Amino acid sequence: MSANGHSHHIPPRSGAAFELKAGEELIVIDPEGGQVADLLAVSLADIREMLSSGRTLDYAERIYLTTGDKLYSNRSNVMLEIVEDTVGRHDFLLTPCSEATFRLCYDNEPPHQGCHGNLAAALAPWGVTDDAIPVAFNCFMNVPVDGETGRFKVLPPLSKAGDHITFRAEMDLVIGLTACSAPASNGGSFKPIHYRIVPKDEGGTASDG
Amino acid sequence: MSANGHSHHIPPRSGAAFELKAGEELIVIDPEGGQVADLLAVSLADIREMLSSGRTLDYAERIYLTTGDKLYSNRSNVMLEIVEDTVGRHDFLLTPCSEATFRLCYDNEPPHQGCHGNLAAALAPWGVTDDAIPVAFNCFMNVPVDGETGRFKVLPPLSKAGDHITFRAEMDLVIGLTACSAPASNGGSFKPIHYRIVPKDEGGTASDG
Repeated sequence: MSANGHSHHIPPRSGAAFELKAGEELIVIDPEGGQVADLLAVSLADIREMLSSGRTLDYAERIYLTTGDKLYSNRSNVMLEIVEDTVGRHDFLLTPCSEATFRLCYDNEPPHQGCHGNLAAALAPWGVTDDAIPVAFNCFMNVPVDGETGRFKVLPPLSKAGDHITFRAEMDLVIGLTACSAPASNGGSFKPIHYRIVPKDEGGTASDG
Repeated sequence: MSANGHSHHIPPRSGAAFELKAGEELIVIDPEGGQVADLLAVSLADIREMLSSGRTLDYAERIYLTTGDKLYSNRSNVMLEIVEDTVGRHDFLLTPCSEATFRLCYDNEPPHQGCHGNLAAALAPWGVTDDAIPVAFNCFMNVPVDGETGRFKVLPPLSKAGDHITFRAEMDLVIGLTACSAPASNGGSFKPIHYRIVPKDEGGTASDG
């Protein structure tokens, strides 16, 4: 364990949830490279306040977010700010993969509850319901959009082993985080995700210790 | 009043809500041209099921939707199908404008509850709460995205007087619909929106009678 706390490991195709207090930093690490982590944020004070892709994109005037960008709630409050990003490509357009994703989008994949089911299960102890889960911030997910036609592709992430993105909490939050379950998002492989919580005023480092 | 029912008028910067049964068609008409209408759909059977931009875009593999595209709920059920579209450019990325939009995005505009507040007020009789309002399908809203940088602009709609988009309900719905309140969405003007409901099996025409 380092001065900044140890790494938590999320096994392939699973999820976790934990509290992140205002001022704390969350480092989401892709330990092997090429893996997606869906991130959801819910206000600890009132679970009806949660991450909003539509608010965030509207205020950023960009669909690709990176260092310096703020993630807003459905009440237009800042929940998280991206304070470090070694990859620079994430997705905030698509919902977490779900049982329906496997049914509708994959011909040869056995059903899986996906990131949606994993987030719902992980966040249930805080009272978050399945129906309430919105578009997540999909760390490392690589969804280039063709601006002319509007078509997009889900390509393998650009992240390499050890790459990370760091968020600072601007309010007390419950975070849901997954190691993504959808083959297309991860270039066909399923790998773990690591994360670390950096206490307020300690300053983050990303070494995966 | 025509055989297909009369046109309902939504005054500038206001909203309406009404039920649309499975098989009925909703024609959303821009009577003067250059005006946006935010559309929200909620299941009449269970208001926790509502329109999902993330599910819809994921399954369409496109951010610009038009005739033939299906709009999905958060439970991955088809709520509406676009059956006619004389414009071909709508937005499904951004949340309805709100009091916060005016506070954060406009320096010289007096506060207004915006489409978000108008949708919340119109849908309240069905039990839909303010916090539950997600990204709406923004009819005629023109938000071209630069695929390289991810930057987008909110440009005046491409719709001309009388242009319309027609949706067929695939389940019993409550629809929220606005005449948009945000200057940028409408090229700086505020105009009304008209709509008509076409009974099942009558087939739609778009004459604004």
